[in-house]
Amino acid sequence: MADEVVLLGFWPSMFGMRARIALAEKGIKYEYKEEDLRNKSDLLLKMNPVHKKIPVLIHNGKPICESLIIVQYIDEVWNHKSPLLPSDPYHRSHARFWADFVDKKVNGVGGKLWDTKGEEQEAAKKEFLEMFKTLERELGGKPYFGGETFGFVDIALVSSYTHLQVFYERFCKFRMEAECPKIVAWVKRCKQKESVAKSLPDQKKISDFLSKWFEPDVAED
Amino acid sequence: MADEVVLLGFWPSMFGMRARIALAEKGIKYEYKEEDLRNKSDLLLKMNPVHKKIPVLIHNGKPICESLIIVQYIDEVWNHKSPLLPSDPYHRSHARFWADFVDKKVNGVGGKLWDTKGEEQEAAKKEFLEMFKTLERELGGKPYFGGETFGFVDIALVSSYTHLQVFYERFCKFRMEAECPKIVAWVKRCKQKESVAKSLPDQKKISDFLSKWFEPDVAED
Repeated sequence: MADEVVLLGFWPSMFGMRARIALAEKGIKYEYKEEDLRNKSDLLLKMNPVHKKIPVLIHNGKPICESLIIVQYIDEVWNHKSPLLPSDPYHRSHARFWADFVDKKVNGVGGKLWDTKGEEQEAAKKEFLEMFKTLERELGGKPYFGGETFGFVDIALVSSYTHLQVFYERFCKFRMEAECPKIVAWVKRCKQKESVAKSLPDQKKISDFLSKWFEPDVAED
Repeated sequence: MADEVVLLGFWPSMFGMRARIALAEKGIKYEYKEEDLRNKSDLLLKMNPVHKKIPVLIHNGKPICESLIIVQYIDEVWNHKSPLLPSDPYHRSHARFWADFVDKKVNGVGGKLWDTKGEEQEAAKKEFLEMFKTLERELGGKPYFGGETFGFVDIALVSSYTHLQVFYERFCKFRMEAECPKIVAWVKRCKQKESVAKSLPDQKKISDFLSKWFEPDVAED
């Protein structure tokens, strides 16, 4: 029996992009179903009754939820090509640490920039730059976070990058190319990969989406 | 060369307890070093420069940080006995989902109970009970979260339980035995295991610690 693979997503979601990139890296064919988050489908509510969130990967009828867990699942099930996590336990724990860093630190600070003003916003800007500096140090001279090949941490971070770019262009004075040249080169390298290029949405569309998301009244004027 | 295993911890930390239980399950001998979190050791700052937090497992000089990542590392390296995660990728993703649920939902709501008042606190109480009901449903008729044997999700949750008990006894009117009898039976079952019994601190000591943590002025009077 052929595998039946379905992905429930929402196009601007960085978490959904992670699953798409991982599936593309493995060359897995799947059916993509776009969710309307204001009117969630019965399928989504049935497949992820605890969080009721996308993405959900449905593999032969069974749901896998939470984006980093989905990427690990994809790597473990389709292990015939493009390993995403290292095979050595220490290096695997290192990859998990940095993917977790992206979830805990990177993904919260963008919203903080938009939601705050004055001193609080200045603190968020400082945090934002420090976070990138930390990532720049971790990347070092390697082409990808895991080393020579594109993997787990690259997927976790590059999926957020389109959003992050909107945030720093809008709120931060620093020039990314000057502050974190290795990160900028890494993003370009990632975007040259077909799996990434075809999974990331257009920068302008994400910018418009985030404006409406954070400032619905202004956007509707 | 024998393995050199060191654990940096702080006795009331539920995250530190996770690492201790996992090491005990595997029968690994290690050196435990208690940290003073107001005056962190050079070793901690060197081994976890990003988060500067315990627990850190140092295995032959290499650091592994973040409690759930540590437990997975322990399971992968010392795989000769007591598997903590299932071998099947789907069941493994399921275990990761519920351990992640504990991190995202369970561990935040206790502090919310203490930090809020009035309507906000009532909402936190409701959330607290719903969270336990969700866990009760997930446990169902199984002896442990993973099925017949003690594993990853059990470690994640039982480490928090001593703290959770302080929270619900102090703030919530519900009787745990009446609302979630399966969870109560599960806790007793876990505590009968030597690995858990010797890793969890005394309930009264945790209660005193949390009072000082959340209400330092009152506790010092």
